[in-house]
Amino acid sequence: MIDADSDHHTNPFFFPRRIAVIGASREKGSIGARVLDCLRSGGFSGSIIPVNPHADSISGLRAFPSLMAVPEPIDLAVITVPAHLSLSIIDECAAKGVPAVIMIAAGFAERGEKGAGIEQKLRAKIQQHRIRLIGPNCFGVMNLDPTIRLNATYTPVLPPFGPVSIASDSGGVGAMVVMAARRVNLGISTYVSLGNHVDVNVNDLLEYWEQDANTQVILLYLETIPDPQRFRQLAERIGSHKPIIALKAGRTTAGQSAAGSHTAALATDDRTVDALFSQCGVIRASRVEEWLALAMAFSNHRRPTGRRVGILTNSGGAGVLCADSCEKEGLVVPPLPPSVSATLASFLSPLAALTNPVDVIGLATEEQHAAATETLLGSDALDALIILYLSINVADNDQAAAGIIRGIRAARQAGSRKPIYLCWMAEGDRDRLFSIDGEAIPTYHTPELPAFVIGRLSSYEAWRQQSLDNVGLPSARELPHLDLPQAKAICAKALLDRGPCWLTTEEVQALLGTVNIPFLGRLATHPDAAVRTAETIGYPVAVKLASRHILHKTELRAVYLNLTDEQAVRQAFHAIKDRLAQAGKSDLMDGVLVQPMVSGGVELLVGATRDPHFGPVIAVGLGGIHVELLGDIQLGLAPLTDHDVSRMIRDLKGYPLLTGYRSRPVMDVRGLEDVLLRISCLVEAITDISQLDLNPIIVLPEGRGCRVVDARVLVQASSEH
Amino acid sequence: MIDADSDHHTNPFFFPRRIAVIGASREKGSIGARVLDCLRSGGFSGSIIPVNPHADSISGLRAFPSLMAVPEPIDLAVITVPAHLSLSIIDECAAKGVPAVIMIAAGFAERGEKGAGIEQKLRAKIQQHRIRLIGPNCFGVMNLDPTIRLNATYTPVLPPFGPVSIASDSGGVGAMVVMAARRVNLGISTYVSLGNHVDVNVNDLLEYWEQDANTQVILLYLETIPDPQRFRQLAERIGSHKPIIALKAGRTTAGQSAAGSHTAALATDDRTVDALFSQCGVIRASRVEEWLALAMAFSNHRRPTGRRVGILTNSGGAGVLCADSCEKEGLVVPPLPPSVSATLASFLSPLAALTNPVDVIGLATEEQHAAATETLLGSDALDALIILYLSINVADNDQAAAGIIRGIRAARQAGSRKPIYLCWMAEGDRDRLFSIDGEAIPTYHTPELPAFVIGRLSSYEAWRQQSLDNVGLPSARELPHLDLPQAKAICAKALLDRGPCWLTTEEVQALLGTVNIPFLGRLATHPDAAVRTAETIGYPVAVKLASRHILHKTELRAVYLNLTDEQAVRQAFHAIKDRLAQAGKSDLMDGVLVQPMVSGGVELLVGATRDPHFGPVIAVGLGGIHVELLGDIQLGLAPLTDHDVSRMIRDLKGYPLLTGYRSRPVMDVRGLEDVLLRISCLVEAITDISQLDLNPIIVLPEGRGCRVVDARVLVQASSEH
Repeated sequence: MIDADSDHHTNPFFFPRRIAVIGASREKGSIGARVLDCLRSGGFSGSIIPVNPHADSISGLRAFPSLMAVPEPIDLAVITVPAHLSLSIIDECAAKGVPAVIMIAAGFAERGEKGAGIEQKLRAKIQQHRIRLIGPNCFGVMNLDPTIRLNATYTPVLPPFGPVSIASDSGGVGAMVVMAARRVNLGISTYVSLGNHVDVNVNDLLEYWEQDANTQVILLYLETIPDPQRFRQLAERIGSHKPIIALKAGRTTAGQSAAGSHTAALATDDRTVDALFSQCGVIRASRVEEWLALAMAFSNHRRPTGRRVGILTNSGGAGVLCADSCEKEGLVVPPLPPSVSATLASFLSPLAALTNPVDVIGLATEEQHAAATETLLGSDALDALIILYLSINVADNDQAAAGIIRGIRAARQAGSRKPIYLCWMAEGDRDRLFSIDGEAIPTYHTPELPAFVIGRLSSYEAWRQQSLDNVGLPSARELPHLDLPQAKAICAKALLDRGPCWLTTEEVQALLGTVNIPFLGRLATHPDAAVRTAETIGYPVAVKLASRHILHKTELRAVYLNLTDEQAVRQAFHAIKDRLAQAGKSDLMDGVLVQPMVSGGVELLVGATRDPHFGPVIAVGLGGIHVELLGDIQLGLAPLTDHDVSRMIRDLKGYPLLTGYRSRPVMDVRGLEDVLLRISCLVEAITDISQLDLNPIIVLPEGRGCRVVDARVLVQASSEH
Repeated sequence: MIDADSDHHTNPFFFPRRIAVIGASREKGSIGARVLDCLRSGGFSGSIIPVNPHADSISGLRAFPSLMAVPEPIDLAVITVPAHLSLSIIDECAAKGVPAVIMIAAGFAERGEKGAGIEQKLRAKIQQHRIRLIGPNCFGVMNLDPTIRLNATYTPVLPPFGPVSIASDSGGVGAMVVMAARRVNLGISTYVSLGNHVDVNVNDLLEYWEQDANTQVILLYLETIPDPQRFRQLAERIGSHKPIIALKAGRTTAGQSAAGSHTAALATDDRTVDALFSQCGVIRASRVEEWLALAMAFSNHRRPTGRRVGILTNSGGAGVLCADSCEKEGLVVPPLPPSVSATLASFLSPLAALTNPVDVIGLATEEQHAAATETLLGSDALDALIILYLSINVADNDQAAAGIIRGIRAARQAGSRKPIYLCWMAEGDRDRLFSIDGEAIPTYHTPELPAFVIGRLSSYEAWRQQSLDNVGLPSARELPHLDLPQAKAICAKALLDRGPCWLTTEEVQALLGTVNIPFLGRLATHPDAAVRTAETIGYPVAVKLASRHILHKTELRAVYLNLTDEQAVRQAFHAIKDRLAQAGKSDLMDGVLVQPMVSGGVELLVGATRDPHFGPVIAVGLGGIHVELLGDIQLGLAPLTDHDVSRMIRDLKGYPLLTGYRSRPVMDVRGLEDVLLRISCLVEAITDISQLDLNPIIVLPEGRGCRVVDARVLVQASSEH
């Protein structure tokens, strides 16, 4: 992250030999004093050098009045002085040759204009000096690697060492996991509080963690995603080996798109984030509790290879709640093979339930807990086991826990590789941990969470397989019949002639033609031309207002369908013209569009907007008025892959309409996929296109492709988006 | 619940003077021994009488060999002996004149056929002897009233006394709350484990708690809802004074309705439960954690009177997550008045955020916590306050807690009535309770839960107001132009003539006519008749297959629209006839339906099914093929009230289509409400109607009512549903 060539273990943020604490203070409770204490009490294996103009020694360490006074080189400076002093300190770091800085101090962009001004200068200065910086306004960095034991934060709580690395846009939210780690049996490798991420951001950390053998699971709390395209590439590449679990605060960005566009109105920020995450396999948590629960589950290297879940409980009600949750998460709670039930019957109480969920009943003995656990872990009919224990008496807990542990140990020794999730509902004994021969069993306290995590583990595994199989698939860029230079020329000419504008109907048709997407019909500016076109197409035809300015043609009653002769076409032309004249909008009429009638297809919407932050976003949804009210729409970020378009279409609730619903024909899903890939190429390549709506586009039966019935394209110089 | 006339405090389940424990045992760990221990250690204020044929004394209490040997009368018998002994014990109770029995013993219907047989005999026996019974297969009963201190269960853990009463279909799930109560500062009044509820069920308890002054909040865990109509009446009446919070396990009942009905396919059990709960104001939790969180929030008598939430945090990230959750729950996080921000500025750090969420920053002092809390509690711009505290150092917690408590106390003394919800994220100090001058502040550990509970509190308050205002509204039964005797006659005749069957088109039209719902068009069995009808109606017309057997007419291409002359009508008649003949289905044709063309309306579906357990369920949804795929449908249980139909229609995602969407006309919502009320009356009164679909029904612009375009009605003798 500092230098791709440098040896990993020399990274100055994570493996510094000498740390200077600037602003180290003797004043108890100050950040400087706290950081110094944390570094020392954490057992840092390198040297700690306090820098303070007013002290010779702090906490028994020799202090220096300035960085320049330190005789040895410094790998990392931790700056705790206030914002207004930060710039001169950076100059000093540069003079001393310090390669890396953690700036904990707050008072930058997060606190208004003045702070933003300092932050801007800070950014310029570190770029100038080629210093890498974490922060400002951050909580610091931890590296729990036993060879370094670095705690450059101001919490003295050190989590156990383990596979999880954390990056957080909020010092507190990240620290919450660090603080909870020991209680929930979660091992942490590194923790980075990103603060205002003036320099080092989540993407830099992903790259670092990709190489870091300690890190096996990546946990993110994000309020923004810097450089989403880079994030996507990195997350996809790294996530298939090291699962990435994200809690994203759902703040919406200010709407940027022109009013009235269907696509724009629906592409809210949070749905875009969802699209991004599902495209690159990031596992999203929507609540703090889920986030932590997923971290625990993914930390265990055993993961389910299927969706069949066994439930072992000592409370019928808890079993029912858990089974409900499994079903909700798309998991299966299958009946047990008779041989398994028979085995259970041989040692459980006659009052026990031998089905799945298996209820050993409240007063089960240690022996019964052990034998039931071992039996279910030994069954090939299950891919994962949830064990629910509800205590009604603290005195019973030890024997239940002992039984469960014995059962797990015996099953592991017999070769069972099935993952296990515990729900330990034992009041007064909630913090009991289950570590069995080095394996930390994820342990929760409500019957819903184990089902939730197994659902996400299964979905991740499916994505990972697909992602690994994906290598070598043709990319969208290899589609035939793309003439992107011509597309670019059409948009550039419109921009040059008229500035930011909606393309005319002819321009839209030509533009879609360059990417081989058929737009139905032809423009006619005179009744005679309309009739000639109708005769070329063949009756019946539709005649519609062509206007780049008027969005809702149906509401203006400027759409005539099923016209069967010359007379009707002429009447329609004049009626549309008159209606516009009456409305005082004659100048908005480009002419009429004469189209063949299409039947037997399904109406959809395909659109693209350009999110100011995420770039081009492509949408597909069921067409008609329902798209907005019912919100059956799926988004994807360009460039779309084959897998992306396939997922987008299949995730529509209305997808069955395309697959032979109620004896309708099977529709041309491949054709629709092709359109989405082409639109993705178009908007990715032609940055002047700021908005595009194909609405409706008709998907015809299999083999017959799609037809665009109406479309709008807004061009705008890309610098002005 | 035993006897409506008896004095409340003599209820033998909750206020027994003498309890016999049958099966009381010296064997440590047995249920009998545990129950005896619990009664004693709980400090029961009455007499405990062990009954055991093999002991003279148990745990120092004089034991009797049988009930009959006990000299005094017995108010309550707790039976812990195995199922096969239960029947003779009930005989003994009857002989002794015991009015109430708690049967803890398991091994009844929950364990297969043999147990079900015993259970059936048990039910008969207690009815015969007029003994009231809780259980069997239950965990017992608690009454924490200090005058009685009854713990007739087998957990020794006694929760603090307070306003919450609990009924649970699972001993364990209910016990979980009882066990957790002290940790989460929740006061319990009574707890009843319902077991197999052979006799006493949740409805009996609702009636008891209505009269019980100790009970102010009712907490239910239900796997089934016995007698839903009674439950609904009781819950609506009681819930407006004592909120009812339910966790309902979502098991679906086996589908009962004929295949192919839209309404039936959509009315799954769990959606019916949702409908029932929203009709009678029951607050539904979907997870154990939510259930407990709601119990804590509703236990505090201070409740928000609006949706404006203030957030006070010491971690920016936690504030963002909480604000996100508020928005998701439909709450508002409003900007603070400048005067409030100015006050905050006067004592908070210059690094603090003075907007809403207010961030006092991580290192805030006790004084700052106190003053910020007091300031926000004093603002009229907020209806509720969430205080989030995230600890990074256990040593800081005491002063933060002290500050928060001081602030709350000062605000209360100054007259602030605003409810407060804490999110205390303090590792190592999670179980800290906040009780301030007798007020238990609901305290959670994740930033999402306070937002969730405030959302539910607000919705409850809205329902409660409506429910209190509701008195005196006209009931559906007072609708004009209902001829239910005639409706009954139509169905009865069809049943008599043909047995269970679909009504013919003419019968359907007549049936809808009896409740004044207009069905468009007229049946014609001959081309000449079709033409005559078309001429009466006036062209253009639609001609459709009329068949009670063929559901999907469009797919058979047996629908002709926009016919403008005699010729077209004749052709349509013959085409339909030919198509059926080709398909070998001529005998399924009743004729054709000739209808006027209707335009300018919105297509909906209205349907009714008869749930074997919940009775008639009415559905309304957006019509067309989308209703099933997109699931935009709302259910309600008959009898529907004015409020029910209003909610059902307004909760549709497609509701804006009815209110002037995109310059369309405003539709006749009152007319649609009227149709729903009429259908409710019809299916409630005529129990022979087992299924009814108006699909589509067209809602016309305001003042013009609704028109049924197609409809089907299945009749079946009500005993056979």
